[in-house]
Amino acid sequence: MPRISQKGQRMPASPIRKLVPFAEAAKKRGTKVLHLNIGQPDIATPQVALDAIRSTDLKVVEYSHSAGFESYRKGLAAYYSRHGIRITHEDVLITTGGSEALLFGMMACFDQGDELIVPEPFYANYNSFAISAGVTVVPVRSGIETGFALPPIAEFEKLITPRTKGILICNPGNPTGYLYSRAELETLRDIVKAHDLFLFSDEVYREFCYDGAKHESAMTLEGIEDNVVMVDSVSKRYSMCGARIGAFVTRNRELMATALKFAQARLSPPTFGQIASEAALNTPDSYFTEVIGEYVQRRNVLVDGLNAIPGVRCAKPKGAFYCVAELPIDDADAFCQWLLEKFEHKGHTVMMAPATGFYAEPTPGRRQVRLAYVLEQEKLNLAVECLQAALTSYPGSTAVAHAAKASA
Amino acid sequence: MPRISQKGQRMPASPIRKLVPFAEAAKKRGTKVLHLNIGQPDIATPQVALDAIRSTDLKVVEYSHSAGFESYRKGLAAYYSRHGIRITHEDVLITTGGSEALLFGMMACFDQGDELIVPEPFYANYNSFAISAGVTVVPVRSGIETGFALPPIAEFEKLITPRTKGILICNPGNPTGYLYSRAELETLRDIVKAHDLFLFSDEVYREFCYDGAKHESAMTLEGIEDNVVMVDSVSKRYSMCGARIGAFVTRNRELMATALKFAQARLSPPTFGQIASEAALNTPDSYFTEVIGEYVQRRNVLVDGLNAIPGVRCAKPKGAFYCVAELPIDDADAFCQWLLEKFEHKGHTVMMAPATGFYAEPTPGRRQVRLAYVLEQEKLNLAVECLQAALTSYPGSTAVAHAAKASA
Repeated sequence: MPRISQKGQRMPASPIRKLVPFAEAAKKRGTKVLHLNIGQPDIATPQVALDAIRSTDLKVVEYSHSAGFESYRKGLAAYYSRHGIRITHEDVLITTGGSEALLFGMMACFDQGDELIVPEPFYANYNSFAISAGVTVVPVRSGIETGFALPPIAEFEKLITPRTKGILICNPGNPTGYLYSRAELETLRDIVKAHDLFLFSDEVYREFCYDGAKHESAMTLEGIEDNVVMVDSVSKRYSMCGARIGAFVTRNRELMATALKFAQARLSPPTFGQIASEAALNTPDSYFTEVIGEYVQRRNVLVDGLNAIPGVRCAKPKGAFYCVAELPIDDADAFCQWLLEKFEHKGHTVMMAPATGFYAEPTPGRRQVRLAYVLEQEKLNLAVECLQAALTSYPGSTAVAHAAKASA
Repeated sequence: MPRISQKGQRMPASPIRKLVPFAEAAKKRGTKVLHLNIGQPDIATPQVALDAIRSTDLKVVEYSHSAGFESYRKGLAAYYSRHGIRITHEDVLITTGGSEALLFGMMACFDQGDELIVPEPFYANYNSFAISAGVTVVPVRSGIETGFALPPIAEFEKLITPRTKGILICNPGNPTGYLYSRAELETLRDIVKAHDLFLFSDEVYREFCYDGAKHESAMTLEGIEDNVVMVDSVSKRYSMCGARIGAFVTRNRELMATALKFAQARLSPPTFGQIASEAALNTPDSYFTEVIGEYVQRRNVLVDGLNAIPGVRCAKPKGAFYCVAELPIDDADAFCQWLLEKFEHKGHTVMMAPATGFYAEPTPGRRQVRLAYVLEQEKLNLAVECLQAALTSYPGSTAVAHAAKASA
């Protein structure tokens, strides 16, 4: 039997999905699983998008242009303009989810062994796309003690080598929920400019900013117009993850022409998803007002609930719908598996993503988990209750010791 | 401005789409363009698939499992079984078009510099996926004089090096329309077995076999079960190119587990496309009878018409809906561009794909074009008439010399 590739061997299993078989077994035993492990919102997709699909009069489901429907690209340019991002449809390439935009970007910008600096913890699949493109991820650590703020500029400077070709941020951040300030983005601009790097900015959670905070796009940074790639997606914005529609956005003409060659190889993005996404541009503002109101309440229930558990620490995110919590445990992978295999509370257990997969090396995330607050508040309350109970009975818990230390 | 990647620079522009700006200019001048350049059929998508999309009652367009809907995978396994391919749904991973299946396969099987032998001319995008995965394509030439039959085993043996990791075939072939016989497949099996290679078999045109010929799948070859990867797609089968649904099929468990890690990174294949594709499994046989009857007639009109033009040679394909023709011209790229820029006949011109892009190096395809017979017979007749007229007036035509030689 021929051997599989080294690339394939190094490819990580999804930290978000690798516990799925244990969850399935728990469900078979009759335990209800509260899914905080994956960013799959329960929010309804906008009616206007679903209606467009139901009323399609296509006779032949054809390929679209490799860059996507021109009408949709124009609609997106107008949408970006409303968010203070001034571009034309020629700066927009429609992709199969934000995932493909990341892959095209990495393929078009980086060669085997080029280095990409990424503040960690970071979205686990950045590792996967980097392996696919032969890129070396160089993590720069952000800490739970600062709520995962951008590390100081000196930390970036220390990591820059002749192979450094780019910096990748997620803003607002998955898994941290951290929202970068204008000042932080300007710091990044200065590093990018000084070393002539690409700046990839994953902004798929743009709409999800809380407590009056305003999202600042990397596309609005002056003086690095040819360096910036914005990655976007309809998945979370319209709760339409399965449409698999995203966008690769850049003002750099040569880079766009190169990305288009990768796009031509795969022919076109999905036609049905584009129909739904183009229609979704007409989603009323009231939809977002409601959804954001709901997420703020969910965040408060979950994060305040977690912080009330002895030994648990969780920064309050200003964006997206994730948080990273530090737990009084020995090992997050073992704990998350134990929750599914051995634990239940009132007929329920909790599924979370161990944070180890969100770091370039597992060690710093050993006691952390990522939670997605994508369930109703009632279920989130029950999840907090479950976790509190679990931490008192988990054999690897350090909660008792921690509590003792805290009161000492 | 940071430089783009070498990979990006090497990436070819699509030979199928690179003439698009010239076609657009022709249309603006009022010339009607007969599109024989792209495998976008005008055949209607099965009603059962369109109905499924129109009647969807989804409220939230969620991610599916990374391997695709289990129900669809089971349905596909049953479909394959009807085609003599005995597998279970666990051997099937749903992908975003056949394109993604090829990319996952190359990523999972091959490392930077590994060699993949491909009979040429071959589907142009194989080059693109190979560049993305860092694979070196090693062409083995098939010739128009044998109708693009499999080259002799000795030709393969000559090319095998310690870096050879696989062979990739397309059966029936794009761009040649050649259908491999059982004996040819068994020859391939022997090479694959002797050198422990992967055999990738792109079988997306399975249904399109003519003149009573029977399609033989590489999945039915005994003794190399762990070596074979089948690439599939609904694009052509159901004239549903825009659905972007394909499949990666293998009995090799380790390889499937590896491909699944690449699939997890991009989260899931498109949900709407899966709904349509699962419904399309119920397409009545009468649909294929009609479609295949239509393609046979189209093929006859086009290929017989081409062969009647002095100096033109075109093998009659037994499958798919393409043919490669050799023309009495100096340069196919120049000719195809000239047709769009300088020529019209009865208000029409013809768009074709120069065959240069279907070879690893452009030279052997210099006088060849690929034509897709995806238009109505009346239009194909007109296309042949256009070509005949064009060949008498094209400045780079060698037709007169050729005709003189033939009658000498």
